Amino acid sequence: MAPRLLVGAIPGHSQLAYDMERAGHTVRPIDISTDPGAIAHVDLVLIDGSANDIRAAAEILADYARPQQMFLHTALEEGPQLLDDVETSQAITMCAHNLFDNIWVTSATDELGETVVGLLIAEIGGTSMRIDDTVRPTIAAAQELRALEATVRDDALELLIDAVPSFEAVAEKFMAAASGRRYARSVSELDRMLVALPEPGVRRLFVDLQRRRGEMEQDTDTELWVIQKYEGR
Amino acid sequence: MAPRLLVGAIPGHSQLAYDMERAGHTVRPIDISTDPGAIAHVDLVLIDGSANDIRAAAEILADYARPQQMFLHTALEEGPQLLDDVETSQAITMCAHNLFDNIWVTSATDELGETVVGLLIAEIGGTSMRIDDTVRPTIAAAQELRALEATVRDDALELLIDAVPSFEAVAEKFMAAASGRRYARSVSELDRMLVALPEPGVRRLFVDLQRRRGEMEQDTDTELWVIQKYEGR
Repeated sequence: MAPRLLVGAIPGHSQLAYDMERAGHTVRPIDISTDPGAIAHVDLVLIDGSANDIRAAAEILADYARPQQMFLHTALEEGPQLLDDVETSQAITMCAHNLFDNIWVTSATDELGETVVGLLIAEIGGTSMRIDDTVRPTIAAAQELRALEATVRDDALELLIDAVPSFEAVAEKFMAAASGRRYARSVSELDRMLVALPEPGVRRLFVDLQRRRGEMEQDTDTELWVIQKYEGR
Repeated sequence: MAPRLLVGAIPGHSQLAYDMERAGHTVRPIDISTDPGAIAHVDLVLIDGSANDIRAAAEILADYARPQQMFLHTALEEGPQLLDDVETSQAITMCAHNLFDNIWVTSATDELGETVVGLLIAEIGGTSMRIDDTVRPTIAAAQELRALEATVRDDALELLIDAVPSFEAVAEKFMAAASGRRYARSVSELDRMLVALPEPGVRRLFVDLQRRRGEMEQDTDTELWVIQKYEGR
């Protein structure tokens, strides 16, 4: 059995903090604005938040960090360099970001850190995928695209609420439902659907998405249809 | 207990046919190209397929339909009028289309049909929402938008496969994962993500989706950012 760690969580209970507690570690929240010295007692400092939050926390904690103490942040945008201020105390600096489900992307300043973060993620039942910090912006963009799906779903929901009596009762279920299945569409089908969209913004989104889809599938008919729609704006 | 029906399924085993079988009805596939007269023996004729398929099937079956015999099609694009050819025999004509999960939109030629289709859907554990046939194109457009989410997800997947070593091993899991959570993004964050996207088509999709999102949330900063990107093309 792996050694149980004393974990200090900043700012408090994040999903990872909860997961580590469940894995048998002792987790306590630490308020670094009132008591940054409290990290002296913990084996692992877990910092959650935006890149700026993390950088600011590392600056505050720099005076208290000790050699071989473990520091882990969960931001995606930047790697262990956010923890540079504590790394000068020869602390072990690592990052682990949850992409989805139990899949995590990780990196660390050195091999020791890479091994440790891999073990920590394995312990909470996660899959750790080591990344090069240079690809972080690409991963962030991919995650943003996945988040933008909600924009499309929101528009679909609005349409259904307007069209189907009492659809609101199943709105939550609709938001959680899987993506619809795609079918090849003739341009006359596309036209019929486009005409049925009342709002210009939704119509544009519809055409924009068909454009990308046509491009990906090298579907010339759809691409020509899109060009026509753009010109007709 | 509701009476058990003898159901003829055209062209064969659809999800609804399976669900009806599970609900206790007897379902047999019918091949109308070789034996259209086989429908004489069934209580309910279930027709699955595109609007054109259904219209063609109704034309073939017109000679064999009898008064009070039930006909149900599952297309979304058009309502019971697809079954007009059999309706002249005073058959009961109905439509039920599965939107997602167990949610169905239904309509019928008359009140009897509306009651029957509501009962049939309730029997298979579904929720039936009665619609006006005029909204069918809007519902179809909403469903198409939901299907186009896959376009966005496909692009996100490609990016992650390129950026994260061995991501392909979790690709299926990624495709099935829920949509990402949206966060407010500063324009400098948007810029950093946009620059990280290697392909022009993906960059455009990213901007197009931000545009619609900015519009929905009346987020002027994002909208101005989008205009700038459009001009810079």
